Amino acid sequence: MDIERLKQQMDFILEADKSKKVIRQTYLADGSRKEDDAEHSWHLALMCILLSEYANEKIDVLKTTAMVLIHDIVEIDAGDTYAYDTAGNSTKRERELAAAERIFSLLPSDQAAKMRGLWDEFEEGETAEARFANTLDKIQPVFLTNANHGKSWKEHEVKESQIMSRNSHTGDGSEELWAYCRELIEKNIADGNIKAGE
Amino acid sequence: MDIERLKQQMDFILEADKSKKVIRQTYLADGSRKEDDAEHSWHLALMCILLSEYANEKIDVLKTTAMVLIHDIVEIDAGDTYAYDTAGNSTKRERELAAAERIFSLLPSDQAAKMRGLWDEFEEGETAEARFANTLDKIQPVFLTNANHGKSWKEHEVKESQIMSRNSHTGDGSEELWAYCRELIEKNIADGNIKAGE
Repeated sequence: MDIERLKQQMDFILEADKSKKVIRQTYLADGSRKEDDAEHSWHLALMCILLSEYANEKIDVLKTTAMVLIHDIVEIDAGDTYAYDTAGNSTKRERELAAAERIFSLLPSDQAAKMRGLWDEFEEGETAEARFANTLDKIQPVFLTNANHGKSWKEHEVKESQIMSRNSHTGDGSEELWAYCRELIEKNIADGNIKAGE
Repeated sequence: MDIERLKQQMDFILEADKSKKVIRQTYLADGSRKEDDAEHSWHLALMCILLSEYANEKIDVLKTTAMVLIHDIVEIDAGDTYAYDTAGNSTKRERELAAAERIFSLLPSDQAAKMRGLWDEFEEGETAEARFANTLDKIQPVFLTNANHGKSWKEHEVKESQIMSRNSHTGDGSEELWAYCRELIEKNIADGNIKAGE
């Protein structure tokens, strides 16, 4: 056995533990607290396995699952940027690229290249797998926030126009899941949890 | 689209959110708090993808990843039973079977059968995938607890004999990962974090 290789893998796996401390703006379904990146990524992986039948195009489920498992790992360094935080989003890309450089290079070079490649692919959103992963990443907070009666939307006074703009590509991975999600959004606009209009 | 089918899938995915509230006895690597089932399952899925090369037998990585993603979902009802809690472990199987009945049946029948099958397979531990998944499930708390200087071992005054008995099958999924894990255990016995002997 190549003990140096296993040591590099375990160093990465230990570093990844910090994802459990990156807190997102989305609350759990019961509204009791915000979820963290590890929990969110687990939820997306489960969804990927159960909902792949709704992908617009045929996808490689293992590849997409791996992609969602690591899609937020750069936030260990770069932090979570709330979807509707304009200032934070202007520097997000630069912070995340630096994080990707550091974190993936903990792995042996073959796996570093593979995992970094999956992260880049997710960010670029130009393959069937990346499109479906991005769809899951967008609908998961919507169904959680619907379940907790719009908690983070109300806290941030999120507007319909912001949500629709953010979700302009959500249908690209799955028209069916986006249709389901849009119904939840409509309901929350009607209920006043999302501010109607611009 | 079969809207009833999607509704059942989303009901299960929403129910699964409760895994984020099932607290394990293992502390995060930095010792700041205990991890929950969703975080633990995410960590195992990541390990499965990165460490499958060490499996004793060839495994189906997607199947094993799906297995670790749902292996603890019954704890939503049955709760987490600490590995070294004798009383809790005597009723664990019965509680978990009832939970599996309820939770997996939220899914459409084909997926309910498939996911329940994966859970049964993990529990029985008689396939290459189940053996490797069980190995991951055993080594992850060891490397986290090694990182936090034995926090939960010291709290529960865990003995070498208990750890070795619990890990009597950890090598069945991967001799190499078990050898790595055993070194960490030895180090923690030497450091007094695990009580030597019986």
